[in-house]
Amino acid sequence: QVTLPSLAHREVARALAAEAAAAVPLLPSAVPVDVADFRNSAGTAVGTLDVRRGEPASSIDFMLHSSLHCKVPNGAIDITSVLIFLNALTDAPHFLMEFIQGSPTSMVVILDLLPRKDLALHPEYLQKYYEHTHLDKQREKIEELPQTRPYRSPSLFVRSACSPTAVSVTIDCGQGGEGTLEEIVCGHLASAVKEVLQIWLHSCARDTSEMEEAEREIMIKRDQVVRSKSIEVDLTANLPRMFGPDVSGHIIAEIRKTFGVQLQEA
Amino acid sequence: QVTLPSLAHREVARALAAEAAAAVPLLPSAVPVDVADFRNSAGTAVGTLDVRRGEPASSIDFMLHSSLHCKVPNGAIDITSVLIFLNALTDAPHFLMEFIQGSPTSMVVILDLLPRKDLALHPEYLQKYYEHTHLDKQREKIEELPQTRPYRSPSLFVRSACSPTAVSVTIDCGQGGEGTLEEIVCGHLASAVKEVLQIWLHSCARDTSEMEEAEREIMIKRDQVVRSKSIEVDLTANLPRMFGPDVSGHIIAEIRKTFGVQLQEA
Repeated sequence: QVTLPSLAHREVARALAAEAAAAVPLLPSAVPVDVADFRNSAGTAVGTLDVRRGEPASSIDFMLHSSLHCKVPNGAIDITSVLIFLNALTDAPHFLMEFIQGSPTSMVVILDLLPRKDLALHPEYLQKYYEHTHLDKQREKIEELPQTRPYRSPSLFVRSACSPTAVSVTIDCGQGGEGTLEEIVCGHLASAVKEVLQIWLHSCARDTSEMEEAEREIMIKRDQVVRSKSIEVDLTANLPRMFGPDVSGHIIAEIRKTFGVQLQEA
Repeated sequence: QVTLPSLAHREVARALAAEAAAAVPLLPSAVPVDVADFRNSAGTAVGTLDVRRGEPASSIDFMLHSSLHCKVPNGAIDITSVLIFLNALTDAPHFLMEFIQGSPTSMVVILDLLPRKDLALHPEYLQKYYEHTHLDKQREKIEELPQTRPYRSPSLFVRSACSPTAVSVTIDCGQGGEGTLEEIVCGHLASAVKEVLQIWLHSCARDTSEMEEAEREIMIKRDQVVRSKSIEVDLTANLPRMFGPDVSGHIIAEIRKTFGVQLQEA
Protein backbone atom coordinates (compact mmCIF):
# COMPACT_ATOMS: atom_id res chain seq x y z
CA GLN A 1 0.00 0.00 0.00
CA VAL A 2 1.18 3.49 -0.87
CA THR A 3 2.55 5.61 2.02
CA LEU A 4 3.55 9.27 2.34
CA PRO A 5 7.15 9.37 1.14
CA SER A 6 9.57 11.32 3.30
CA LEU A 7 10.52 14.54 1.57
CA ALA A 8 12.63 17.50 2.69
CA HIS A 9 9.68 19.90 2.26
CA ARG A 10 7.44 17.69 4.39
CA GLU A 11 10.01 17.74 7.21
CA VAL A 12 10.20 21.54 7.02
CA ALA A 13 6.40 21.73 7.28
CA ARG A 14 6.35 19.27 10.18
CA ALA A 15 8.94 21.23 12.13
CA LEU A 16 7.08 24.47 11.41
CA ALA A 17 3.73 23.08 12.54
CA ALA A 18 5.36 21.78 15.73
CA GLU A 19 6.93 25.16 16.42
CA ALA A 20 3.62 26.94 15.85
CA ALA A 21 1.72 24.44 18.00
CA ALA A 22 4.11 25.04 20.89
CA ALA A 23 3.63 28.79 20.65
CA VAL A 24 -0.13 29.27 20.27
CA PRO A 25 -2.98 27.99 22.46
CA LEU A 26 -4.46 24.96 20.66
CA LEU A 27 -6.87 22.24 21.68
CA PRO A 28 -5.90 18.61 20.98
CA SER A 29 -6.33 17.29 17.47
CA ALA A 30 -9.98 16.73 16.63
CA VAL A 31 -10.45 14.94 13.33
CA PRO A 32 -12.03 11.49 12.82
CA VAL A 33 -9.53 8.66 12.17
CA ASP A 34 -10.63 8.31 8.55
CA VAL A 35 -9.84 11.96 7.97
CA ALA A 36 -6.55 11.99 9.86
CA ASP A 37 -5.34 9.35 7.41
CA PHE A 38 -6.98 8.56 4.07
CA ARG A 39 -6.26 6.92 0.74
CA ASN A 40 -8.03 6.10 -2.51
CA SER A 41 -9.23 2.61 -3.37
CA ALA A 42 -6.76 2.24 -6.26
CA GLY A 43 -3.89 2.68 -3.80
CA THR A 44 -2.34 5.51 -5.81
CA ALA A 45 -3.08 8.40 -3.45
CA VAL A 46 -2.66 8.91 0.29
CA GLY A 47 -3.17 11.87 2.58
CA THR A 48 -3.16 13.10 6.15
CA LEU A 49 -5.13 15.96 7.67
CA ASP A 50 -4.74 17.35 11.14
CA VAL A 51 -6.91 20.13 12.51
CA ARG A 52 -6.56 21.69 15.95
CA ARG A 53 -8.96 24.41 17.06
CA GLY A 54 -7.71 27.34 19.09
CA GLU A 55 -8.45 27.38 22.82
CA PRO A 56 -11.71 29.07 23.74
CA ALA A 57 -11.37 32.86 24.16
CA SER A 58 -8.08 32.88 22.24
CA SER A 59 -7.84 34.64 18.87
CA ILE A 60 -6.78 31.39 17.16
CA ASP A 61 -9.52 29.86 15.03
CA PHE A 62 -7.63 26.73 13.94
CA MET A 63 -4.39 25.25 12.69
CA LEU A 64 -4.68 22.93 9.71
CA HIS A 65 -1.80 20.72 8.57
CA SER A 66 -2.24 18.47 5.56
CA SER A 67 -0.07 16.28 3.36
CA LEU A 68 -1.11 14.68 0.09
CA HIS A 69 0.74 12.24 -2.12
CA CYS A 70 -0.61 11.08 -5.44
CA LYS A 71 0.99 8.96 -8.12
CA VAL A 72 0.63 10.37 -11.62
CA PRO A 73 1.68 8.81 -14.96
CA ASN A 74 5.23 10.22 -14.87
CA GLY A 75 5.91 10.33 -11.15
CA ALA A 76 4.03 11.77 -8.21
CA ILE A 77 2.70 15.01 -6.83
CA ASP A 78 3.15 15.95 -3.17
CA ILE A 79 1.24 18.84 -1.59
CA THR A 80 1.82 20.00 1.98
CA SER A 81 -0.05 22.86 3.64
CA VAL A 82 0.02 24.57 7.01
CA LEU A 83 -2.67 27.19 7.66
CA ILE A 84 -3.19 29.01 10.93
CA PHE A 85 -6.33 31.09 10.81
CA LEU A 86 -7.46 33.66 13.36
CA ASN A 87 -11.00 34.43 14.44
CA ALA A 88 -12.97 37.66 14.59
CA LEU A 89 -11.39 38.78 17.89
CA THR A 90 -8.62 40.21 15.73
CA ASP A 91 -8.14 41.56 12.22
CA ALA A 92 -4.51 40.38 12.12
CA PRO A 93 -3.45 38.35 9.06
CA HIS A 94 -3.67 34.55 8.84
CA PHE A 95 -0.56 32.40 8.32
CA LEU A 96 -0.46 30.38 5.11
CA MET A 97 2.20 28.05 3.72
CA GLU A 98 1.82 25.67 0.82
CA PHE A 99 4.37 23.46 -0.96
CA ILE A 100 3.43 21.73 -4.20
CA GLN A 101 6.16 19.40 -5.37
CA GLY A 102 5.63 17.98 -8.85
CA SER A 103 9.04 16.33 -9.31
CA PRO A 104 12.18 15.57 -7.29
CA THR A 105 13.82 18.69 -8.74
CA SER A 106 11.08 21.32 -8.70
CA MET A 107 8.30 22.70 -6.53
CA VAL A 108 5.97 25.64 -6.02
CA VAL A 109 6.11 27.58 -2.75
CA ILE A 110 3.40 29.89 -1.46
CA LEU A 111 4.08 31.62 1.84
CA ASP A 112 2.10 34.58 3.06
CA LEU A 113 0.43 36.40 5.88
CA LEU A 114 -3.04 36.62 4.35
CA PRO A 115 -4.52 40.10 4.80
CA ARG A 116 -8.00 40.38 6.24
CA LYS A 117 -8.65 43.94 5.14
CA ASP A 118 -8.59 45.75 1.82
CA LEU A 119 -5.00 47.02 1.76
CA ALA A 120 -5.74 49.83 -0.70
CA LEU A 121 -8.41 51.18 1.65
CA HIS A 122 -6.39 50.66 4.83
CA PRO A 123 -2.78 51.82 4.38
CA GLU A 124 -2.35 51.83 8.18
CA TYR A 125 -3.03 48.06 8.20
CA LEU A 126 -0.50 47.56 5.41
CA GLN A 127 2.02 49.57 7.38
CA LYS A 128 1.42 47.74 10.66
CA TYR A 129 1.58 44.15 9.46
CA TYR A 130 3.62 44.33 6.26
CA GLU A 131 5.90 47.39 6.23
CA HIS A 132 6.90 47.57 9.89
CA THR A 133 7.53 43.81 10.02
CA HIS A 134 9.87 43.93 6.97
CA LEU A 135 8.07 40.90 5.62
CA ASP A 136 9.09 41.76 2.07
CA LYS A 137 12.73 40.94 2.90
CA GLN A 138 11.82 37.26 3.19
CA ARG A 139 10.29 37.36 -0.28
CA GLU A 140 13.37 39.09 -1.65
CA LYS A 141 15.71 36.49 -0.14
CA ILE A 142 13.82 33.65 -1.80
CA GLU A 143 13.46 35.42 -5.14
CA GLU A 144 17.19 36.17 -5.23
CA LEU A 145 17.93 32.46 -5.67
CA PRO A 146 18.75 31.78 -9.33
CA GLN A 147 16.57 28.64 -9.23
CA THR A 148 13.38 30.57 -8.48
CA ARG A 149 10.97 32.32 -10.80
CA PRO A 150 7.63 33.94 -9.94
CA TYR A 151 4.66 31.60 -9.75
CA ARG A 152 1.30 33.07 -10.76
CA SER A 153 -1.67 31.13 -9.54
CA PRO A 154 -4.01 30.52 -12.48
CA SER A 155 -6.76 31.78 -10.15
CA LEU A 156 -7.01 35.57 -10.19
CA PHE A 157 -8.90 35.27 -6.91
CA VAL A 158 -5.99 33.55 -5.17
CA ARG A 159 -3.65 36.25 -6.46
CA SER A 160 -6.04 38.93 -5.18
CA ALA A 161 -6.28 37.35 -1.73
CA CYS A 162 -2.50 37.32 -1.18
CA SER A 163 -0.52 40.20 0.23
CA PRO A 164 1.99 42.17 -1.88
CA THR A 165 4.77 40.51 0.12
CA ALA A 166 3.63 36.94 -0.60
CA VAL A 167 6.31 34.46 -1.61
CA SER A 168 4.87 32.78 -4.70
CA VAL A 169 7.62 31.05 -6.65
CA THR A 170 8.56 27.98 -8.61
CA ILE A 171 11.90 26.55 -7.54
CA ASP A 172 13.31 24.58 -10.46
CA CYS A 173 16.74 22.97 -10.10
CA GLY A 174 16.76 21.29 -13.52
CA GLN A 175 17.91 17.83 -14.50
CA GLY A 176 20.02 16.19 -11.83
CA GLY A 177 19.07 18.91 -9.36
CA GLU A 178 17.59 16.65 -6.65
CA GLY A 179 20.39 17.49 -4.21
CA THR A 180 20.24 21.20 -4.96
CA LEU A 181 16.49 21.30 -4.33
CA GLU A 182 16.94 19.51 -1.01
CA GLU A 183 19.66 21.98 -0.01
CA ILE A 184 17.44 24.95 -0.87
CA VAL A 185 14.46 23.46 0.98
CA CYS A 186 16.48 22.70 4.13
CA GLY A 187 18.44 25.95 3.88
CA HIS A 188 16.95 29.12 2.40
CA LEU A 189 13.36 27.94 2.36
CA ALA A 190 13.34 26.53 5.89
CA SER A 191 14.81 29.72 7.27
CA ALA A 192 12.40 32.00 5.36
CA VAL A 193 9.47 29.92 6.58
CA LYS A 194 10.72 30.14 10.16
CA GLU A 195 11.24 33.89 9.93
CA VAL A 196 7.75 34.45 8.55
CA LEU A 197 6.29 32.30 11.34
CA GLN A 198 8.25 34.34 13.92
CA ILE A 199 6.90 37.58 12.44
CA TRP A 200 3.39 36.14 12.53
CA LEU A 201 3.75 34.85 16.10
CA HIS A 202 5.12 38.18 17.21
CA SER A 203 2.76 40.58 15.42
CA CYS A 204 -0.41 38.64 14.69
CA ALA A 205 -0.98 35.55 16.83
CA ARG A 206 -1.56 37.32 20.12
CA ASP A 207 -3.13 40.42 18.69
CA THR A 208 -6.65 41.46 19.57
CA SER A 209 -8.04 44.50 17.83
CA GLU A 210 -10.52 47.18 18.73
CA MET A 211 -12.86 47.32 15.77
CA GLU A 212 -16.05 49.13 15.01
CA GLU A 213 -18.95 46.74 14.54
CA ALA A 214 -19.39 47.70 10.85
CA GLU A 215 -15.70 47.08 10.20
CA ARG A 216 -15.83 43.71 11.94
CA GLU A 217 -18.83 42.71 9.84
CA ILE A 218 -17.00 43.53 6.59
CA MET A 219 -13.98 41.56 7.83
CA ILE A 220 -16.12 38.53 8.70
CA LYS A 221 -17.77 38.64 5.29
CA ARG A 222 -14.38 38.97 3.58
CA ASP A 223 -13.03 36.02 5.58
CA GLN A 224 -16.01 33.91 4.51
CA VAL A 225 -15.50 34.77 0.84
CA VAL A 226 -11.78 34.00 0.99
CA ARG A 227 -12.38 30.70 2.79
CA SER A 228 -15.14 29.56 0.43
CA LYS A 229 -13.27 30.56 -2.69
CA SER A 230 -10.05 28.88 -1.58
CA ILE A 231 -11.88 25.62 -0.92
CA GLU A 232 -13.49 25.94 -4.35
CA VAL A 233 -10.26 26.75 -6.18
CA ASP A 234 -7.88 24.54 -4.27
CA LEU A 235 -9.77 21.50 -3.05
CA THR A 236 -12.95 20.91 -4.99
CA ALA A 237 -10.91 21.35 -8.17
CA ASN A 238 -8.18 18.87 -7.21
CA LEU A 239 -9.09 16.39 -4.46
CA PRO A 240 -11.77 14.46 -6.41
CA ARG A 241 -9.30 13.77 -9.22
CA MET A 242 -6.80 12.41 -6.70
CA PHE A 243 -9.02 10.50 -4.26
CA GLY A 244 -12.32 9.89 -6.06
CA PRO A 245 -15.66 11.47 -5.10
CA ASP A 246 -16.34 9.56 -1.84
CA VAL A 247 -13.05 10.04 -0.01
CA SER A 248 -12.63 13.60 -1.26
CA GLY A 249 -16.22 14.48 -0.37
CA HIS A 250 -15.58 13.32 3.19
CA ILE A 251 -12.32 15.30 3.48
CA ILE A 252 -13.75 18.45 1.90
CA ALA A 253 -16.72 18.31 4.31
CA GLU A 254 -14.27 18.20 7.23
CA ILE A 255 -12.32 21.17 5.86
CA ARG A 256 -15.55 23.10 5.29
CA LYS A 257 -16.46 22.46 8.93
CA THR A 258 -13.05 23.72 10.02
CA PHE A 259 -13.33 26.80 7.83
CA GLY A 260 -16.87 27.48 9.02
CA VAL A 261 -18.20 27.52 5.46
CA GLN A 262 -20.56 24.56 5.33
CA LEU A 263 -22.70 24.07 2.24
CA GLN A 264 -26.46 24.58 2.61
CA GLU A 265 -27.04 20.95 1.70
CA ALA A 266 -24.35 19.56 4.05
CA GLN B 1 17.43 74.77 -23.62
CA VAL B 2 16.55 71.16 -22.94
CA THR B 3 13.55 69.74 -24.84
CA LEU B 4 11.58 66.50 -24.59
CA PRO B 5 13.52 64.04 -26.74
CA SER B 6 11.49 61.92 -29.12
CA LEU B 7 11.35 58.35 -27.88
CA ALA B 8 9.47 55.31 -29.14
CA HIS B 9 7.62 54.95 -25.81
CA ARG B 10 6.52 58.59 -25.92
CA GLU B 11 5.07 58.08 -29.38
CA VAL B 12 3.16 54.99 -28.19
CA ALA B 13 1.71 57.01 -25.30
CA ARG B 14 0.80 59.90 -27.60
CA ALA B 15 -1.05 57.61 -30.00
CA LEU B 16 -2.82 55.90 -27.11
CA ALA B 17 -3.91 59.20 -25.55
CA ALA B 18 -5.21 60.36 -28.95
CA GLU B 19 -7.16 57.14 -29.42
CA ALA B 20 -8.67 57.40 -25.95
CA ALA B 21 -9.53 61.08 -26.41
CA ALA B 22 -11.40 60.26 -29.62
CA ALA B 23 -13.43 57.57 -27.87
CA VAL B 24 -14.51 59.14 -24.58
CA PRO B 25 -16.35 62.43 -23.96
CA LEU B 26 -13.71 64.95 -22.83
CA LEU B 27 -13.75 68.71 -22.39
CA PRO B 28 -10.91 70.73 -23.96
CA SER B 29 -7.58 70.82 -22.21
CA ALA B 30 -7.69 72.97 -19.10
CA VAL B 31 -4.26 73.51 -17.59
CA PRO B 32 -2.43 76.83 -17.23
CA VAL B 33 0.37 77.43 -19.78
CA ASP B 34 3.10 77.11 -17.13
CA VAL B 35 1.76 73.65 -16.23
CA ALA B 36 1.24 72.46 -19.79
CA ASP B 37 4.97 73.01 -20.30
CA PHE B 38 7.51 73.41 -17.53
CA ARG B 39 11.23 73.18 -16.85
CA ASN B 40 13.69 73.69 -14.03
CA SER B 41 15.91 76.74 -13.79
CA ALA B 42 19.09 74.70 -14.32
CA GLY B 43 17.79 73.59 -17.72
CA THR B 44 18.27 69.89 -16.92
CA ALA B 45 14.61 68.88 -16.65
CA VAL B 46 11.55 69.49 -18.77
CA GLY B 47 7.98 68.27 -18.60
CA THR B 48 4.51 68.51 -20.11
CA LEU B 49 1.19 67.92 -18.43
CA ASP B 50 -2.18 67.78 -20.11
CA VAL B 51 -5.42 67.29 -18.22
CA ARG B 52 -8.85 67.05 -19.79
CA ARG B 53 -11.93 66.65 -17.61
CA GLY B 54 -14.76 64.38 -18.67
CA GLU B 55 -17.89 66.00 -20.07
CA PRO B 56 -20.52 66.83 -17.43
CA ALA B 57 -22.83 63.87 -16.67
CA SER B 58 -20.36 61.40 -18.21
CA SER B 59 -18.64 58.79 -16.02
CA ILE B 60 -15.19 60.13 -17.04
CA ASP B 61 -13.50 62.11 -14.29
CA PHE B 62 -10.36 63.11 -16.22
CA MET B 63 -7.62 62.05 -18.59
CA LEU B 64 -4.10 63.00 -17.56
CA HIS B 65 -1.15 62.72 -19.91
CA SER B 66 2.30 63.70 -18.72
CA SER B 67 5.86 63.44 -19.98
CA LEU B 68 8.98 64.16 -17.98
CA HIS B 69 12.61 64.26 -19.07
CA CYS B 70 15.43 64.81 -16.63
CA LYS B 71 19.17 64.66 -17.17
CA VAL B 72 21.03 62.63 -14.57
CA PRO B 73 24.81 62.15 -14.15
CA ASN B 74 25.00 59.13 -16.47
CA GLY B 75 22.24 59.91 -18.95
CA ALA B 76 18.59 60.82 -18.56
CA ILE B 77 15.34 59.50 -17.17
CA ASP B 78 12.10 59.75 -19.14
CA ILE B 79 8.72 59.12 -17.55
CA THR B 80 5.46 59.11 -19.49
CA SER B 81 2.03 58.48 -17.96
CA VAL B 82 -1.51 58.25 -19.24
CA LEU B 83 -4.25 57.94 -16.62
CA ILE B 84 -7.97 57.91 -17.34
CA PHE B 85 -9.95 58.01 -14.13
CA LEU B 86 -13.68 57.50 -13.74
CA ASN B 87 -16.00 59.22 -11.29
CA ALA B 88 -18.47 57.87 -8.75
CA LEU B 89 -21.20 57.25 -11.37
CA THR B 90 -19.48 53.91 -11.92
CA ASP B 91 -17.35 51.45 -9.99
CA ALA B 92 -15.54 50.31 -13.17
CA PRO B 93 -11.73 50.28 -13.05
CA HIS B 94 -9.53 53.24 -14.02
CA PHE B 95 -7.01 53.01 -16.87
CA LEU B 96 -3.36 53.43 -15.92
CA MET B 97 -0.21 53.30 -18.02
CA GLU B 98 3.27 54.38 -17.00
CA PHE B 99 6.61 54.09 -18.79
CA ILE B 100 9.82 54.83 -16.90
CA GLN B 101 12.83 54.74 -19.19
CA GLY B 102 16.16 54.95 -17.40
CA SER B 103 18.44 54.19 -20.37
CA PRO B 104 18.21 53.72 -24.15
CA THR B 105 18.11 49.94 -23.62
CA SER B 106 15.82 49.45 -20.64
CA MET B 107 12.56 50.66 -19.17
CA VAL B 108 9.84 49.84 -16.64
CA VAL B 109 6.26 49.36 -17.85
CA ILE B 110 3.18 49.51 -15.64
CA LEU B 111 -0.14 48.91 -17.35
CA ASP B 112 -3.32 48.12 -15.46
CA LEU B 113 -7.02 48.59 -15.04
CA LEU B 114 -6.97 49.81 -11.45
CA PRO B 115 -9.67 48.10 -9.38
CA ARG B 116 -11.97 50.29 -7.32
CA LYS B 117 -13.27 47.55 -5.07
CA ASP B 118 -11.66 45.02 -2.75
CA LEU B 119 -11.25 42.06 -5.09
CA ALA B 120 -11.09 39.49 -2.28
CA LEU B 121 -14.46 40.70 -0.99
CA HIS B 122 -16.05 41.04 -4.43
CA PRO B 123 -15.28 38.02 -6.63
CA GLU B 124 -18.12 39.04 -8.97
CA TYR B 125 -16.26 42.31 -9.69
CA LEU B 126 -13.05 40.38 -10.37
CA GLN B 127 -14.96 38.12 -12.71
CA LYS B 128 -16.69 40.93 -14.58
CA TYR B 129 -13.73 43.20 -15.26
CA TYR B 130 -10.73 40.87 -15.10
CA GLU B 131 -11.70 37.27 -15.86
CA HIS B 132 -14.37 37.80 -18.50
CA THR B 133 -12.22 40.37 -20.31
CA HIS B 134 -9.21 37.99 -20.48
CA LEU B 135 -7.02 40.86 -19.36
CA ASP B 136 -4.42 38.45 -18.00
CA LYS B 137 -3.55 37.35 -21.56
CA GLN B 138 -2.01 40.77 -22.22
CA ARG B 139 0.20 40.39 -19.14
CA GLU B 140 1.23 36.92 -20.27
CA LYS B 141 2.16 38.12 -23.77
CA ILE B 142 4.47 40.79 -22.35
CA GLU B 143 6.01 38.52 -19.71
CA GLU B 144 6.76 35.86 -22.33
CA LEU B 145 9.35 38.16 -23.91
CA PRO B 146 12.83 37.00 -22.85
CA GLN B 147 13.84 40.64 -22.23
CA THR B 148 11.24 41.17 -19.48
CA ARG B 149 11.38 40.38 -15.80
CA PRO B 150 8.82 41.26 -13.12
CA TYR B 151 9.09 44.75 -11.66
CA ARG B 152 8.09 45.14 -8.01
CA SER B 153 7.31 48.66 -6.99
CA PRO B 154 9.26 49.45 -3.80
CA SER B 155 5.93 50.75 -2.48
CA LEU B 156 3.79 47.97 -1.01
CA PHE B 157 0.85 50.33 -1.37
CA VAL B 158 1.30 50.64 -5.13
CA ARG B 159 1.51 46.85 -5.37
CA SER B 160 -1.68 46.53 -3.30
CA ALA B 161 -3.56 49.01 -5.45
CA CYS B 162 -2.86 47.15 -8.70
CA SER B 163 -4.97 44.30 -10.05
CA PRO B 164 -3.66 40.72 -10.25
CA THR B 165 -3.48 41.14 -14.03
CA ALA B 166 -1.30 44.26 -13.93
CA VAL B 167 1.65 44.34 -16.30
CA SER B 168 4.56 45.41 -14.11
CA VAL B 169 7.84 44.58 -15.81
CA THR B 170 11.34 45.76 -16.51
CA ILE B 171 12.28 45.38 -20.16
CA ASP B 172 16.05 45.14 -20.37
CA CYS B 173 17.68 44.59 -23.77
CA GLY B 174 21.27 44.74 -22.52
CA GLN B 175 24.29 46.42 -24.05
CA GLY B 176 23.74 47.41 -27.65
CA GLY B 177 20.03 46.67 -27.32
CA GLU B 178 18.72 50.12 -28.35
CA GLY B 179 17.18 48.76 -31.55
CA THR B 180 15.67 45.74 -29.79
CA LEU B 181 14.02 47.96 -27.18
CA GLU B 182 12.56 50.18 -29.88
CA GLU B 183 11.21 47.12 -31.71
CA ILE B 184 9.59 45.77 -28.53
CA VAL B 185 8.09 49.16 -27.69
CA CYS B 186 6.65 49.68 -31.18
CA GLY B 187 5.61 46.03 -31.52
CA HIS B 188 4.58 43.93 -28.50
CA LEU B 189 4.22 46.80 -26.07
CA ALA B 190 2.22 49.07 -28.40
CA SER B 191 -0.17 46.26 -29.21
CA ALA B 192 -0.65 45.21 -25.55
CA VAL B 193 -1.32 48.81 -24.60
CA LYS B 194 -3.87 49.15 -27.41
CA GLU B 195 -5.59 45.91 -26.44
CA VAL B 196 -5.86 46.95 -22.80
CA LEU B 197 -7.29 50.31 -23.86
CA GLN B 198 -9.84 48.53 -26.07
CA ILE B 199 -10.87 46.30 -23.16
CA TRP B 200 -11.19 49.35 -20.94
CA LEU B 201 -13.15 51.34 -23.55
CA HIS B 202 -15.47 48.40 -24.11
CA SER B 203 -16.07 47.27 -20.50
CA CYS B 204 -15.38 50.26 -18.30
CA ALA B 205 -15.53 53.66 -20.00
CA ARG B 206 -19.23 53.70 -20.73
CA ASP B 207 -20.29 51.72 -17.73
CA THR B 208 -22.60 53.13 -15.08
CA SER B 209 -23.31 51.00 -12.05
CA GLU B 210 -26.22 50.61 -9.72
CA MET B 211 -24.68 50.80 -6.29
CA GLU B 212 -26.03 50.94 -2.78
CA GLU B 213 -25.19 54.19 -1.07
CA ALA B 214 -22.97 52.48 1.54
CA GLU B 215 -21.03 50.70 -1.20
CA ARG B 216 -20.56 53.94 -3.14
CA GLU B 217 -19.27 55.65 -0.01
CA ILE B 218 -16.66 52.94 0.55
CA MET B 219 -15.63 53.20 -3.10
CA ILE B 220 -15.29 56.97 -2.91
CA LYS B 221 -13.16 56.68 0.23
CA ARG B 222 -11.01 53.99 -1.40
CA ASP B 223 -10.54 56.16 -4.49
CA GLN B 224 -9.42 59.07 -2.30
CA VAL B 225 -6.89 56.91 -0.47
CA VAL B 226 -5.49 55.49 -3.71
CA ARG B 227 -5.25 58.95 -5.29
CA SER B 228 -3.60 60.56 -2.25
CA LYS B 229 -1.15 57.72 -1.75
CA SER B 230 -0.15 57.62 -5.40
CA ILE B 231 0.58 61.34 -5.40
CA GLU B 232 2.60 60.86 -2.23
CA VAL B 233 4.54 57.85 -3.50
CA ASP B 234 4.98 58.88 -7.11
CA LEU B 235 5.13 62.64 -7.29
CA THR B 236 6.03 64.20 -3.96
CA ALA B 237 8.88 61.70 -3.74
CA ASN B 238 10.30 62.42 -7.20
CA LEU B 239 9.25 65.71 -8.76
CA PRO B 240 11.02 68.03 -6.26
CA ARG B 241 14.33 66.28 -6.96
CA MET B 242 13.85 66.78 -10.70
CA PHE B 243 12.34 70.27 -10.87
CA GLY B 244 13.10 71.93 -7.53
CA PRO B 245 10.49 72.89 -4.93
CA ASP B 246 8.81 75.81 -6.75
CA VAL B 247 8.09 74.24 -10.13
CA SER B 248 7.22 70.86 -8.63
CA GLY B 249 4.98 72.44 -5.99
CA HIS B 250 3.04 74.18 -8.75
CA ILE B 251 2.69 70.97 -10.80
CA ILE B 252 1.75 68.81 -7.81
CA ALA B 253 -0.92 71.34 -6.80
CA GLU B 254 -2.43 71.06 -10.30
CA ILE B 255 -2.42 67.25 -10.12
CA ARG B 256 -3.98 67.34 -6.65
CA LYS B 257 -6.72 69.55 -8.07
CA THR B 258 -7.27 67.07 -10.90
CA PHE B 259 -7.32 64.13 -8.49
CA GLY B 260 -9.69 65.95 -6.14
CA VAL B 261 -7.32 65.48 -3.20
CA GLN B 262 -6.29 69.00 -2.28
CA LEU B 263 -4.24 69.55 0.85
CA GLN B 264 -5.94 71.37 3.74
CA GLU B 265 -3.42 74.18 3.43
CA ALA B 266 -3.68 74.52 -0.38
